[in-house]
Amino acid sequence: MSMNTFGHLFRVTTWGESHGPALGATVDGVPPGIEINEEMLQHWLDLRKPGQNKYTTQRREPDAVRILSGVFDGKTTGTSVQLMIENTDQRSKDYSEIAQKFRPGHADITYYQKYGLRDYRGGGRSSARETAARVAAGGIARAALDQLLPGLKITGYMVQMGHRKADPTAYDLSEVANNPFWCPDAATANAWADDLDALRKSGNSVGAVIEVTAQGAPAGLGAPIYGKLDTDLAAAMMSINAVKAVEIGEGMAAACLTGTENADEITMGPDGPIYSSNHAGGILGGISTGQDIVVRFAVKPTSSILKSRKTITLDGENTEIITKGRHDPCVGIRAVPVGEAMMACVLLDHYLLHRGQVGGAGGTLAT
Amino acid sequence: MSMNTFGHLFRVTTWGESHGPALGATVDGVPPGIEINEEMLQHWLDLRKPGQNKYTTQRREPDAVRILSGVFDGKTTGTSVQLMIENTDQRSKDYSEIAQKFRPGHADITYYQKYGLRDYRGGGRSSARETAARVAAGGIARAALDQLLPGLKITGYMVQMGHRKADPTAYDLSEVANNPFWCPDAATANAWADDLDALRKSGNSVGAVIEVTAQGAPAGLGAPIYGKLDTDLAAAMMSINAVKAVEIGEGMAAACLTGTENADEITMGPDGPIYSSNHAGGILGGISTGQDIVVRFAVKPTSSILKSRKTITLDGENTEIITKGRHDPCVGIRAVPVGEAMMACVLLDHYLLHRGQVGGAGGTLAT
Amino acid sequence: MSMNTFGHLFRVTTWGESHGPALGATVDGVPPGIEINEEMLQHWLDLRKPGQNKYTTQRREPDAVRILSGVFDGKTTGTSVQLMIENTDQRSKDYSEIAQKFRPGHADITYYQKYGLRDYRGGGRSSARETAARVAAGGIARAALDQLLPGLKITGYMVQMGHRKADPTAYDLSEVANNPFWCPDAATANAWADDLDALRKSGNSVGAVIEVTAQGAPAGLGAPIYGKLDTDLAAAMMSINAVKAVEIGEGMAAACLTGTENADEITMGPDGPIYSSNHAGGILGGISTGQDIVVRFAVKPTSSILKSRKTITLDGENTEIITKGRHDPCVGIRAVPVGEAMMACVLLDHYLLHRGQVGGAGGTLAT
Amino acid sequence: MSMNTFGHLFRVTTWGESHGPALGATVDGVPPGIEINEEMLQHWLDLRKPGQNKYTTQRREPDAVRILSGVFDGKTTGTSVQLMIENTDQRSKDYSEIAQKFRPGHADITYYQKYGLRDYRGGGRSSARETAARVAAGGIARAALDQLLPGLKITGYMVQMGHRKADPTAYDLSEVANNPFWCPDAATANAWADDLDALRKSGNSVGAVIEVTAQGAPAGLGAPIYGKLDTDLAAAMMSINAVKAVEIGEGMAAACLTGTENADEITMGPDGPIYSSNHAGGILGGISTGQDIVVRFAVKPTSSILKSRKTITLDGENTEIITKGRHDPCVGIRAVPVGEAMMACVLLDHYLLHRGQVGGAGGTLAT
Repeated sequence: MSMNTFGHLFRVTTWGESHGPALGATVDGVPPGIEINEEMLQHWLDLRKPGQNKYTTQRREPDAVRILSGVFDGKTTGTSVQLMIENTDQRSKDYSEIAQKFRPGHADITYYQKYGLRDYRGGGRSSARETAARVAAGGIARAALDQLLPGLKITGYMVQMGHRKADPTAYDLSEVANNPFWCPDAATANAWADDLDALRKSGNSVGAVIEVTAQGAPAGLGAPIYGKLDTDLAAAMMSINAVKAVEIGEGMAAACLTGTENADEITMGPDGPIYSSNHAGGILGGISTGQDIVVRFAVKPTSSILKSRKTITLDGENTEIITKGRHDPCVGIRAVPVGEAMMACVLLDHYLLHRGQVGGAGGTLAT
Repeated sequence: MSMNTFGHLFRVTTWGESHGPALGATVDGVPPGIEINEEMLQHWLDLRKPGQNKYTTQRREPDAVRILSGVFDGKTTGTSVQLMIENTDQRSKDYSEIAQKFRPGHADITYYQKYGLRDYRGGGRSSARETAARVAAGGIARAALDQLLPGLKITGYMVQMGHRKADPTAYDLSEVANNPFWCPDAATANAWADDLDALRKSGNSVGAVIEVTAQGAPAGLGAPIYGKLDTDLAAAMMSINAVKAVEIGEGMAAACLTGTENADEITMGPDGPIYSSNHAGGILGGISTGQDIVVRFAVKPTSSILKSRKTITLDGENTEIITKGRHDPCVGIRAVPVGEAMMACVLLDHYLLHRGQVGGAGGTLAT
Repeated sequence: MSMNTFGHLFRVTTWGESHGPALGATVDGVPPGIEINEEMLQHWLDLRKPGQNKYTTQRREPDAVRILSGVFDGKTTGTSVQLMIENTDQRSKDYSEIAQKFRPGHADITYYQKYGLRDYRGGGRSSARETAARVAAGGIARAALDQLLPGLKITGYMVQMGHRKADPTAYDLSEVANNPFWCPDAATANAWADDLDALRKSGNSVGAVIEVTAQGAPAGLGAPIYGKLDTDLAAAMMSINAVKAVEIGEGMAAACLTGTENADEITMGPDGPIYSSNHAGGILGGISTGQDIVVRFAVKPTSSILKSRKTITLDGENTEIITKGRHDPCVGIRAVPVGEAMMACVLLDHYLLHRGQVGGAGGTLAT
Repeated sequence: MSMNTFGHLFRVTTWGESHGPALGATVDGVPPGIEINEEMLQHWLDLRKPGQNKYTTQRREPDAVRILSGVFDGKTTGTSVQLMIENTDQRSKDYSEIAQKFRPGHADITYYQKYGLRDYRGGGRSSARETAARVAAGGIARAALDQLLPGLKITGYMVQMGHRKADPTAYDLSEVANNPFWCPDAATANAWADDLDALRKSGNSVGAVIEVTAQGAPAGLGAPIYGKLDTDLAAAMMSINAVKAVEIGEGMAAACLTGTENADEITMGPDGPIYSSNHAGGILGGISTGQDIVVRFAVKPTSSILKSRKTITLDGENTEIITKGRHDPCVGIRAVPVGEAMMACVLLDHYLLHRGQVGGAGGTLAT
């Protein structure tokens, strides 16, 4: 995990800028013999694609992914897979002002401070467009997981937008695909629609919380001490643009619990251990328990807003900026498929790591 | 970052179990010429040491660190530094019951499910005792940072225990060392003392939130995309025992903000950019801004409690367990020096990475 | 250094097959502000390009490299650089027979044994075409080195073909570009021309030895113990297709020397230490001395020959094969620019590593 | 593979100086359930131990290895194993002169030039004593291989000392343990004894060539492109002190062969492919063929000799030095067990990597 690479054995290296000729991912360590084609990956990219409804940016990218290597006769060969998405809707002229001014909340100023220069077109490398490459790579991870861990199911959904939270007692995962917010609670989705209409008209934006769960993961994934499953999930989610927090299971609320409340009691079921609850989010000591793996992350509001904000120029002069252009009022919406992709990458990586170190062995309680 | 190793250039590999002969850290990539001695490292270990007051476990370990390599004539040589802490207060007999039963909330069951066997003495490798090695390694990082970034100051403190939060308007960092909770708010510290007395008597435990800040860090630390400073901080903190969530700046609360509220406006000051606020926690696009770096993490309540909990045996039989022994009612207290150590390791690592890739160059706004 | 990635801080990940749509390299850790353009990289690729004379394969690839990311306004931005070379002269039909038969000396059988399937078109991932990506990446390394270590000069040349060696007393590096063999000794080059004409007509091939030197490298590059400069050079060169041995300085001949013969004596010169000889090849204890760095590697004869060889089919039946097609009679010739590229990558990587760990410090004798 | 760490999944990090309190290895990624005890590791260390006969240094170290972590009830637990060897025979006073003078052929000057300071006691970190830690770690790798690949047999032996080579037609591996040179040819061993007696009396030293073979390794170990089995073997052997060259199979002699001579023809045998010869040294395209894996490396003559050599002081003054003390006239002898250990580490690492990526799958020809 260094610079532009994520993962241990299943390793994803992404490249590309928002407004360069293309972006993509180099995916290494892919198990051989996995059925992959561009349509399968395109499916996931289309879910992330902007411009699908009025709540996401109107920038229209076909985001068509091409497989340039590592797949032969429809199957992975075990060698590095190159995924490329060409940038077709670049409109560089939209971004002329930001060449001279730093947009508050963006990485413009830090890239400049670090490197002494930056690609100012649409955020360059720091653009959320990089996440398209993750979603494509995640598609490969999902295909491998489908074959290696057939019962596994990864689902992401939005559980909070601004101050309004979805109602956990009303979660219905079959509802997630029915609304533009990936919300598991139809009533909240409707309320969010109204909230977001108002925000968009006012030129403002808002934050969100995404939850991603993995059902059907086996016990035993993860490794002490710095390759813990939750450690890698935290890194995976925190590396997504605009994410400011990551929670596992109870998350921050674990601080409020007592030991008796928090301990998930164990009894023996017909197929292995059963837990009275899942405060742990499916992970103990960095290793999966076989329960649902539950991760949440908070996405800050889109920093590009149609409100004037104070900033400085390249020359250090005080000025103001309004970030015109086509921006999502709640960038968290489009983070849902990205979070799913990162979950898939982490789980596949840890499955391979486990298989490498431990092989088919393991405790007799393993489910 | 794989298995028992943390970091890119400044790399810490820890080893050792709770009740084996010793534990320690192998520290690689240390800059040469840094003044280090055992007393300097012992200072940090003593802060973490249990048994110092009634709120931490009465297990009495001297936790004396020895430097076995990499230091000559009082200075680091640039080669790998080995730090060893011998375990002297082992009392293995205290742990005989847990050889047969899995303690709920502990990693007993997952280690067993993963590896098919486990060192059951005091949690073995999953014990929080491993964090002593991190604190020792963090002492080296701090010494290097003192020399390389003399203005940098890292401070950790507890801001929440159970439902009771310290009052941010009353934070006084000079107060942190004056109470057994590392609390920056004396009034809250007193209230926590009462809370914890009651909990301890009842044999229960409680969670906590720790905040760690770094003041005086330069702009430009961190690297896109998967080696972001916040990504590595999230991994660092999540890898600490019992941590369930990590926040940067606003953290989960970023979800509630609008774009206008969240954007830290920029103006030009005499020595570089000045920000109107620090919702970002000092990091934009994964790179430090020069503001305070602010990280928080939640620690779950100690899972070892004097309350009977349902569990199963190695043979899959239902049973109950009371985890006797000497346990902290709020393990979060002792996590404070650990969080500081991890912050130090991450900042030094990113300083070296930056110096490696960029050298002395950088934007003219860099402070 | 794992799977398809080479390097520590300056990291090159290559991808692509011989007869897929494209191949390339993802280059991470590039210092910012380095002037790069496609012409600069094309220069090095053209040197490696096949079909330039009768001694290299007549496959005609333009091998045009495109920069897809990481460069803006003609300078590197510090983010990952993607280099892509499209395959235009694929002629897949040439390779139909080898789908069913394993070519002796090739990786056909081992890829199949490892992965259970393989891309049989022209060797797929195991083709020497992969080295085009290395040469392109090496072009970036060279540009960075030109800026960071302006006195450094990397030169590769062929010193042996079959049993005929170039005469070291006649080496003239200015001669290297004057003959199709990169030979520093014009007389030997003429003899090789005759040797190779005969071999080519007979449908056979022959091995070679390449030497690569770096003049003007500073003292202090390299790191104990497993990141030694010679360790990384050995890995770099051995990873090139068909290489079977790597030597540093005296190489295998060091076995024949006595201690008095081997020790390069040291005296003080006007600008630093001067050595009486360079048996060490410029590296002591894994760290550069400031002398010329000297590496040699042996390349086996091209395995694709127009002679019938015994082999087996996918089904395990005995058969014979003649590898028709356009093949180099001495693949070692085209390995020269590849060896130079690997030297450049290793030196830049170690320069950045050194700068990261040690900064501008170092011993007073450093030159 | 960075700095003091070697390996991908099975990772060995060594630490310690020649004359510090101790040295050792932190071994990560060990499969769980492997039977290990100190006696098993001591067996291998005793083979390497100095002072066993008149041909190796008379420094007498018991080299007693302790296991400090990662093993419980006689089996590995899957967590990091710490191996420690205390230095008991330090005699630092022997080394007072070299604090001020650089020994030609040693790393004294390069460590100083790199780091600006050095541990001058007995070479510090650059001492061949570091290899004791490798041998101990190799003992763990061997134990794991015994369990995972029961038919595998690793044997190292010396095949050349000075100009005198063992006779390949007379190799008898059962002879290796019968002479102090690990020579597979008894007649040559006798001649070497005379050679070395003369050299030792004259205060000189000599180089050597070691060959290490692995019989019974399965096909399919290794990975393209930069994690090739031969790439990692080259790095492993080149990282050993005083090694100047590494050969696989034909090695440098491959340059002299024609394609027809070099191609190992394939026919189908009862249990898988059979090869007419093994010029490849058991590796094609970086992946094992199932034939014997054959590696050779050249060790330069001991640089510490009782002959006066020109050198400079720390202050840059010209002087001379005679390296008194207890030194091996042919350090290559003691490199034999080290080469075996590195072979074991590389093979285990690649076995785990293969199992991780590919699992139990593989081509039908796999043996």
